[in-house]
Amino acid sequence: MSKKIGIVGATGYTGVELLRLLVNHPGVTLSYVTSRENAGMRVDAMFPNLRGYVDLTFSTPSDEQLAECDLVFFATPNGVAMKSAQVLLDAGVKVIDLAADFRIKDIALWEKWYGMTHASPDLVAEAVYGLPELNRAAVQQARLVANPGCYPTAVTLGLLPLVENKLIDLDGIIADTKSGASGAGRKAEVHTLLCEAGDSFKAYAVAGHRHQPEIAQTLSLMAGCPINPTFVPHLLPMIRGIHATLYAMLQEGNVDLQQLYQTRYAAEPFVDVMPAGSHPETRSVRGANFCRIALHRPGNAQRVVVLSVIDNLVKGAAGQAVQNMNLMLGFAEDTALRHPGLLP
Amino acid sequence: MSKKIGIVGATGYTGVELLRLLVNHPGVTLSYVTSRENAGMRVDAMFPNLRGYVDLTFSTPSDEQLAECDLVFFATPNGVAMKSAQVLLDAGVKVIDLAADFRIKDIALWEKWYGMTHASPDLVAEAVYGLPELNRAAVQQARLVANPGCYPTAVTLGLLPLVENKLIDLDGIIADTKSGASGAGRKAEVHTLLCEAGDSFKAYAVAGHRHQPEIAQTLSLMAGCPINPTFVPHLLPMIRGIHATLYAMLQEGNVDLQQLYQTRYAAEPFVDVMPAGSHPETRSVRGANFCRIALHRPGNAQRVVVLSVIDNLVKGAAGQAVQNMNLMLGFAEDTALRHPGLLP
Amino acid sequence: MSKKIGIVGATGYTGVELLRLLVNHPGVTLSYVTSRENAGMRVDAMFPNLRGYVDLTFSTPSDEQLAECDLVFFATPNGVAMKSAQVLLDAGVKVIDLAADFRIKDIALWEKWYGMTHASPDLVAEAVYGLPELNRAAVQQARLVANPGCYPTAVTLGLLPLVENKLIDLDGIIADTKSGASGAGRKAEVHTLLCEAGDSFKAYAVAGHRHQPEIAQTLSLMAGCPINPTFVPHLLPMIRGIHATLYAMLQEGNVDLQQLYQTRYAAEPFVDVMPAGSHPETRSVRGANFCRIALHRPGNAQRVVVLSVIDNLVKGAAGQAVQNMNLMLGFAEDTALRHPGLLP
Amino acid sequence: MSKKIGIVGATGYTGVELLRLLVNHPGVTLSYVTSRENAGMRVDAMFPNLRGYVDLTFSTPSDEQLAECDLVFFATPNGVAMKSAQVLLDAGVKVIDLAADFRIKDIALWEKWYGMTHASPDLVAEAVYGLPELNRAAVQQARLVANPGCYPTAVTLGLLPLVENKLIDLDGIIADTKSGASGAGRKAEVHTLLCEAGDSFKAYAVAGHRHQPEIAQTLSLMAGCPINPTFVPHLLPMIRGIHATLYAMLQEGNVDLQQLYQTRYAAEPFVDVMPAGSHPETRSVRGANFCRIALHRPGNAQRVVVLSVIDNLVKGAAGQAVQNMNLMLGFAEDTALRHPGLLP
Repeated sequence: MSKKIGIVGATGYTGVELLRLLVNHPGVTLSYVTSRENAGMRVDAMFPNLRGYVDLTFSTPSDEQLAECDLVFFATPNGVAMKSAQVLLDAGVKVIDLAADFRIKDIALWEKWYGMTHASPDLVAEAVYGLPELNRAAVQQARLVANPGCYPTAVTLGLLPLVENKLIDLDGIIADTKSGASGAGRKAEVHTLLCEAGDSFKAYAVAGHRHQPEIAQTLSLMAGCPINPTFVPHLLPMIRGIHATLYAMLQEGNVDLQQLYQTRYAAEPFVDVMPAGSHPETRSVRGANFCRIALHRPGNAQRVVVLSVIDNLVKGAAGQAVQNMNLMLGFAEDTALRHPGLLP
Repeated sequence: MSKKIGIVGATGYTGVELLRLLVNHPGVTLSYVTSRENAGMRVDAMFPNLRGYVDLTFSTPSDEQLAECDLVFFATPNGVAMKSAQVLLDAGVKVIDLAADFRIKDIALWEKWYGMTHASPDLVAEAVYGLPELNRAAVQQARLVANPGCYPTAVTLGLLPLVENKLIDLDGIIADTKSGASGAGRKAEVHTLLCEAGDSFKAYAVAGHRHQPEIAQTLSLMAGCPINPTFVPHLLPMIRGIHATLYAMLQEGNVDLQQLYQTRYAAEPFVDVMPAGSHPETRSVRGANFCRIALHRPGNAQRVVVLSVIDNLVKGAAGQAVQNMNLMLGFAEDTALRHPGLLP
Repeated sequence: MSKKIGIVGATGYTGVELLRLLVNHPGVTLSYVTSRENAGMRVDAMFPNLRGYVDLTFSTPSDEQLAECDLVFFATPNGVAMKSAQVLLDAGVKVIDLAADFRIKDIALWEKWYGMTHASPDLVAEAVYGLPELNRAAVQQARLVANPGCYPTAVTLGLLPLVENKLIDLDGIIADTKSGASGAGRKAEVHTLLCEAGDSFKAYAVAGHRHQPEIAQTLSLMAGCPINPTFVPHLLPMIRGIHATLYAMLQEGNVDLQQLYQTRYAAEPFVDVMPAGSHPETRSVRGANFCRIALHRPGNAQRVVVLSVIDNLVKGAAGQAVQNMNLMLGFAEDTALRHPGLLP
Repeated sequence: MSKKIGIVGATGYTGVELLRLLVNHPGVTLSYVTSRENAGMRVDAMFPNLRGYVDLTFSTPSDEQLAECDLVFFATPNGVAMKSAQVLLDAGVKVIDLAADFRIKDIALWEKWYGMTHASPDLVAEAVYGLPELNRAAVQQARLVANPGCYPTAVTLGLLPLVENKLIDLDGIIADTKSGASGAGRKAEVHTLLCEAGDSFKAYAVAGHRHQPEIAQTLSLMAGCPINPTFVPHLLPMIRGIHATLYAMLQEGNVDLQQLYQTRYAAEPFVDVMPAGSHPETRSVRGANFCRIALHRPGNAQRVVVLSVIDNLVKGAAGQAVQNMNLMLGFAEDTALRHPGLLP
């Protein structure tokens, strides 16, 4: 029997991407798609790519209606899901938050980075960090999943085999990351106008970015000791895609990295370890729920360079959320996610 | 039982797009993917988006092997399919040519525009022009389909209801068309480099373009009299998408165009008549097999402006070819084509 | 002695472009650069390209200070200049409005299209429409210049020789125009985000655009009878550049258009009639105060297609404003404007 | 009296950029612009942005004619200048090579990276590495200048104050660099087509890039000991601009980096040290001969991150070449180079 799905806050890019992926999911029915500001508007009037696929109107969020769902996605700004999650969980609804409300276990740290008081700190401990490659079993049992950030997905998957096996100097990790502009969301702001972000390139938030503590938390858990990588994000003049260039120093040079990664990810449906010497392109995962990784050891014998690409809206957001939903609701993990990237 | 499919010349953009669409088709098996130049290379080494989906190696084209297929696509340059089609048809193989070899019925006209002698003029008469919205029944019976050009698809679908009903002045039709750079193919040429075609816009081939006689032929057939529209193509600084802005003068002002178009296309799975006053965006059909149309009557009472968008690689090439294949092989017409556009 | 220049509302794209052009003008000094919202901020903190060239801080607009200037540019939204122009003119200051306040002579028509009551209708009659190719002598004598709109500049220069000489059917003119996103200004809006306007193409305002009556007014004046062209604007996925594709029917076929245009524009420093058969690219005028024009007569004997390109921020706004300033203040017309376009 | 200038191989992007800059230089006359392949073609037929500025035709390169010049630029592929330089120098002509022929002092190393035998190894020792910020006095005296590579310019200027003062761990330097596609030149190749390089991002040549030994040579000379930085280049989906993100570890934390850089570059006309905490955008130097630098010390106390941007065709090629020419011919160093970047 088809599962009833709700999406809260579906007017942003992760929202429309959830809709694009879910319309072809054979096991679910879209029941409610909410937007406080656009209630009453047809969904396909805002997103014409969905004409013929989504016959729904944005409704005002209502806990009562959402409680009828089997699972609810929050594709809302930070600070929204934490206010409604408890009510839904109490009603037996499973919840996936695509924002950051349940990602950071240290409440004080979260409050510092996100600039607000956490409304349901008790749920943070329960929430499972929804990176299936790390927490698959826990996701399957979870009521509440914190869907990872886009940068953390690309960085963590890129470093995971090295950190799990403590093969690198944990002090000197550098994550030089680049993201398409859709990572900034569908917000009326000057700095992401075509005329501002187009045909140009810059770093941003070098002094500190909210995804740094999220990455640090996951790496530290994997290593069993504190890791505090240098994390520098940049804005690409394009729409979709993250490329993480990861630098580390091997503790010893005598490691077959290619074999290590291939073995670690052999059973993973959505992580692709490319042949040695490859240079993954973000477009190879455009619209697709993949992380493609390539390994390099240039010049300096101990230096390793890992290249990791995802589509920030898919494996970095909505696709990973559907992957988590599949695990939580008992569907095959790749349902509705078996599509090649759009190239060119 | 699964149908065996061959693709000749699969190293261009229509080739990789055919592959992207067909990997999820439940009724077909990719048997041969040929490339004279790249024989021996893995397909997914050239197109990494297909890693995990296509486990094939480019082979040298061989009529003997292709004759084992149920249907063969030619995604080759102009002038290739016309040399092999007869052999394959004789062997009982159905053929879809994505190039122009069988589009123009007037052999002399074709030879003038394409600069070569036609190798199989007899087949031109048999070939069905594969615009399902016009020739569905014939396509279903066809052995040989000439897949329409990208501009002709957008222009013809945009004008069809007006021309079929002779509602407009047939002498003054203007098609101002704009295409993304993928229409020029995956060829090493200076004028389509990112640094030449990017961040700029220009018209080209204003003196004459091969798609003009193709459009003229179809419109003339629909109207039953010669039509010779003014056709001006332009190159957009983007990858996918065609936008046709079509200008005509109504014979009389008292027509409900919106109703006319909605009725004409009511049963069409891949033509979407948008609400009056809409402005279709090419991105709404990115990667999707749709033509979206909107109608306007600005200012001047008799003037009609039709806006028509497609993805040139999908409804303008590979998607339409798969739609034709579905009709020719007896699959549901929309098999493997039910996907929303990628937005943003 | 150096002329004192003020710029009101210099935080938009026409403002920064005025600054970029004027920093190398040997005859002027930038005295006041105002912005109500950003008063107190260094100009080069907002526009880092000006670091080392502009040592000014945005100030709050003050009629008293502006009255010290020799000439003031209004790079403000529509409706601002009309409130201050009289005061400045009374103080002997010359004024160039880059917005639309003084472009339309018919006050009622202006008020209909711009949705506000005109604050100084008396000045509209005095204002000179600042297209030097049409009104050079008047501009030289003017106290108040209405700088033309971007589309009207490209369209009018493209049609001028045909209309002045009444060589075409005045009823059937079509202007299919395409603009980069900078034409929409530096405003926080969703529809011009990189993720909305990038990698896509659409028409907009087909039902009616404010530049249509401006074009109609100029063409009608030139022809001495009412002309009401069909005008359809489109949004290009790039930053700078307008391309107008202009369609008309010659009254008789026996005209040497190339000669006509070359003669008409022979003495013009900023209009370039390209060789017959050319396809002007917008990038050839990127950052440059040029209009490049090419003429075509495809197929149909009476049909003429004119291609006209400008940089919307230069010849379509700030560059033309500087050209007007040079005429008004007695400088050589091309001072500070002699730079090739930035290609690639 | 005006100096006579020749440009050999002016059909690439550095060639057209030299022309764009030199047309406004008051002290030079363009005498010869050569292209073996396009001899007889007007320069402005290939580069229409130069219409009205360059009234020359490409000629076949001739040592005899070039010997009449005061200075000749080689904007040719690697391996061309080394064959002609000696003849020109013997004739008293000064030479600036924009390619790599004279950049690497170690002939064997050069031959390994560039895959050819050096034709004039004796001149390599004489050639001055044309980074004025490092070698101004030597450039002023030079007959032969090796114009630096684009990446080396951005990286070297970004690291210079740190390396000169040996403030950082010289073993762990990382240069994560990103370049627009114009760095690959105006060559008919598939991988830099709009449809390949557009709307995507990737690293390339991670195993080794020719600019790595050039950077290593300069840094080693500055430090007085061997430095072998990790250098990873990436391809940006845009035309112009390089962004270098440079990582190093300070030997001790107690350094005022901002002061150090401001002092080092205080007298430099084309290096701009931005305020602490800035994020330089490549567009701020689009078309301009600037290097903009910003300094960051995020998180980890000893970690320093330097952001350095240039326009690869200007400060990274043609602009720097003109700067060197000005020094060699006795013009003011900034002649023809005083223009703000084109923003937006």
